[in-house]
Amino acid sequence: MSYPFATRVQRITSSAVRDLLKVTQAGDVISFAGGLPDESLFPVQELEMAYQKVFRSGGKYLQYGPTEGDTDLRMLISERMQEKGISSHVENILVTTGSQQAIDLLAKVFLSAGDTILVENPSYLAALQAFRLYETDIIAVESDADGMIPEALEEKIIAHSPKFIYVVPTFSNPEGKVWSRERREALLRLAEKHNVLIVEDDPYSELRFAEEEPVPLAAMDTEGKRVIYTSTFSKTVAPGFRIGWLAGPKEVIRLGALSKQSTDLHTSSVDQRALYYFLKDFPVQDHVDRLRAVYERRMQAMQACLARSGPHLFEWAEPKGGMFLWVAINRPIDTSELLKAAVDEGVAFVPGASFFTGTPQTNTLRLNYTHSSQQRIEEGMGRLMAAIDKVLASKVRE
Amino acid sequence: MSYPFATRVQRITSSAVRDLLKVTQAGDVISFAGGLPDESLFPVQELEMAYQKVFRSGGKYLQYGPTEGDTDLRMLISERMQEKGISSHVENILVTTGSQQAIDLLAKVFLSAGDTILVENPSYLAALQAFRLYETDIIAVESDADGMIPEALEEKIIAHSPKFIYVVPTFSNPEGKVWSRERREALLRLAEKHNVLIVEDDPYSELRFAEEEPVPLAAMDTEGKRVIYTSTFSKTVAPGFRIGWLAGPKEVIRLGALSKQSTDLHTSSVDQRALYYFLKDFPVQDHVDRLRAVYERRMQAMQACLARSGPHLFEWAEPKGGMFLWVAINRPIDTSELLKAAVDEGVAFVPGASFFTGTPQTNTLRLNYTHSSQQRIEEGMGRLMAAIDKVLASKVRE
Repeated sequence: MSYPFATRVQRITSSAVRDLLKVTQAGDVISFAGGLPDESLFPVQELEMAYQKVFRSGGKYLQYGPTEGDTDLRMLISERMQEKGISSHVENILVTTGSQQAIDLLAKVFLSAGDTILVENPSYLAALQAFRLYETDIIAVESDADGMIPEALEEKIIAHSPKFIYVVPTFSNPEGKVWSRERREALLRLAEKHNVLIVEDDPYSELRFAEEEPVPLAAMDTEGKRVIYTSTFSKTVAPGFRIGWLAGPKEVIRLGALSKQSTDLHTSSVDQRALYYFLKDFPVQDHVDRLRAVYERRMQAMQACLARSGPHLFEWAEPKGGMFLWVAINRPIDTSELLKAAVDEGVAFVPGASFFTGTPQTNTLRLNYTHSSQQRIEEGMGRLMAAIDKVLASKVRE
Repeated sequence: MSYPFATRVQRITSSAVRDLLKVTQAGDVISFAGGLPDESLFPVQELEMAYQKVFRSGGKYLQYGPTEGDTDLRMLISERMQEKGISSHVENILVTTGSQQAIDLLAKVFLSAGDTILVENPSYLAALQAFRLYETDIIAVESDADGMIPEALEEKIIAHSPKFIYVVPTFSNPEGKVWSRERREALLRLAEKHNVLIVEDDPYSELRFAEEEPVPLAAMDTEGKRVIYTSTFSKTVAPGFRIGWLAGPKEVIRLGALSKQSTDLHTSSVDQRALYYFLKDFPVQDHVDRLRAVYERRMQAMQACLARSGPHLFEWAEPKGGMFLWVAINRPIDTSELLKAAVDEGVAFVPGASFFTGTPQTNTLRLNYTHSSQQRIEEGMGRLMAAIDKVLASKVRE
C-alpha cells in the first residue's frame, strides 16, 4: 500500500548521524560520531536523590503540568540567564523537550513553506533537518574563523528577506569555533538595521576550557526583542531526560507555548521537577568544572594524535570548548568513503558533507572527543589513521 | 516590535481548556474541566521503585537513546497490542511524548496545507488544534450515539478525498460514547473501498466499566495497513511523564520516527525505562481494575446529581468507560456564559462549543468525573446547579 505522505516528508531521508549511531551501537566500534557526553561522568547518585524527592512529595508531579514548564524550574533558568547578562523573567522562559524541540517550535511559529532563513556554513545538522521539514529555503552565509562575514551577511539579508538568522556562535557545531566580539556586534547591528530576528543556539557555552565566557548575543540585545535564545541541560547534566529551554520576548514564548500545547502538551513534569531539585540541592558548578577539565584533556589527547600524524595531513583549529574537533584532510579523500573504511577498522565519525548547505567540503570530518576515554581516543585515532592509509593506498593502486 | 509569525499560528488562540485550567488552579474551584486522572490514585511508591532501578543501573538511561523508543518498552507495548488482537511487532511501535505527540507527528507526516481530514462532531479539542496548525481543512461527519453515519461518511469521503479519518471510537472525548460493532465495520469497509486511512485514537479503552472491551478498529484491520493507532499511559499509570505510542504500518512508523528525530530526538529515556520496569515488576492490571471501580462509582455519583435535578433539565447518556459525562441542558443557556457564573460559584467544566467543527451546540458541556472525590463531585454539582439557577433567573429578569 502506498501512503499519501505530505510533501514535507517525502524528501527526508535518515540522517548520516542517525545511521551511524545505529552502526556504532554494534560491536567494538569507537565512536567519535555522535555529540554524546560521557555517561560515566553523569551525576547519577545526585539525580537518583533528586528523583526520590519528587516521589516523596506524592503524586503531584506525576499529574499533567503547565505547558510553559515547572514554574520553579523556569525561575532557576531565568536566574541563570540573568547571570549571563541576559535580561529574562519567568515569562520569557519556555521549557522544551530538549533544545531540539525549541528549534522545532521556532520553525513552527515562524516558518511558512517557501520562507527563507540564513545559516552558517557548515551548520548544525539536526537544526537544518528541522527547518527543512517546514519547507524552508535555507541560505548559507559565507563565514570564516570569526563568524559570518558582515558584507556577505548584509547582501544575503537584502537578497532574501529572511525570517531569521540561525547561529551557534559559541563552540559551534560542527566547527567548534567562537565568533569574535566584533562579528557578534556586526550581526546584531545588521539584524537591527534590516529588522531581522536572530536565533542563538547555545548548547555548549558551559563546556568552555577558558575562564571567560564569550558574551551571548542575547546579552548584547539590550532590549531583549531581537534575539531568541535556546540552550539545554543535555551537556551539563544529562541528555536522556530531554530538558532544554527557549528564552525570548513574551510574544514569542506565548506562541511557542501554544504550539507546544498541541505538540506534546508539556515536557515530562517528573523530569523537570527532579532537575529543579538537582540544580537547587547540588553544587552543579563543581560538576561542570569537572566536565570541563576532563573534556579539555580529551580534546588535547585527540589533537596530539592529529599532530603526530605530521603537520601536512590534517588541518584544524584548536577548540576553546564544546564537544567537537573539525578536521580537514589535505588529501583527495571523500570522508563519506573514508567512513566505510573507518567502520571496518572499528572507528566512526561524521563526514563533514552532512553539515553543509550547498556544495560540501568533502574532505572534512567532525570528531567528538567527549564520549570516549583518553585511552579509547588514542586507540580510535590509530584506527582512523589506518583507515586513511588504506584509502590512500587504494587510490594509488587505482 | 511586531514579529513575522507564520500564517499557521496567526489564527491560534489559547484554548478554552487551557484558560480554564489556569483559572481553576487558583482558590477553591472544583474542576470538572480537564481530563485529569486523580493523582491520589497514582502508583507513587511503585513508580519510585521503578525509577530507583533506572539509576541503579548507572548512567546508561541518562544518555541519548534511540528515536523509536526503548526497545524493551516497545516490545512490551507490542505484546499489549497483540493482546488486543492488533497485529504488531516492535518495528510497528513508536514511543511518543504522550499521545498528543503521536497526533502531531501524524499531522506532520500526512498533512500539507489545504489537505482535508474527516472527524466526528464533536471531537477531541487538542487533536483539532494540532490538525489546524497544519492548515488542514477539518470536515465533520454527521454522527449519532453509535458512531459516524455510513451514508454521511461516504458522501464526505467522495466530496473531500480526505487524507485520513480521525476517530475516538471507544469512550470518545467529549461524548464518552462507544461506536457499535456495525459502525466500526462500516467505517473500515468504506475506508477500504475509497482507499482512505483511519487514525484511531484510543486513550480510554482501559478505563472501561464492563468486562468486555470493544474491538479496536486496528484489530479489525487484519492486514494492518489501513488503521494507525495511538494510545497512552497517561490514564492507566500517570500523565506527568508523557509516554504514549503510535502503532502502525512500518512505513508510517519510519517516517514518524524521522519526523520525531527533528522534533525532540526522543522521549525521555529515564521515564521510558522506569515505565518499562514498572510494567514488568508490578501487577498493573490490578491497579487498572482499581481505577475502573473508583471511576465508575464517581461517574454514578455525578450521574445521580444530574438525575436529582429532575428529568427535564439535562440530557446525557451513561458512559460505559472513560473520563467524561457529556451533558445537554434543556434550557436556552449558552454554556460559555454559564461557565463564568459557574467559576464564581467555585466549579468549572468545558463548554461544549470548543469541541465542535462548524456550528456548535452551545447548550452542551463536558464534565470530568475522574479527578475529584465523590464528596467533591457532589459539592461541585451543587455549585453547578446554583450557577444554572442564577443564569436562568437573570434571563427571566432580562
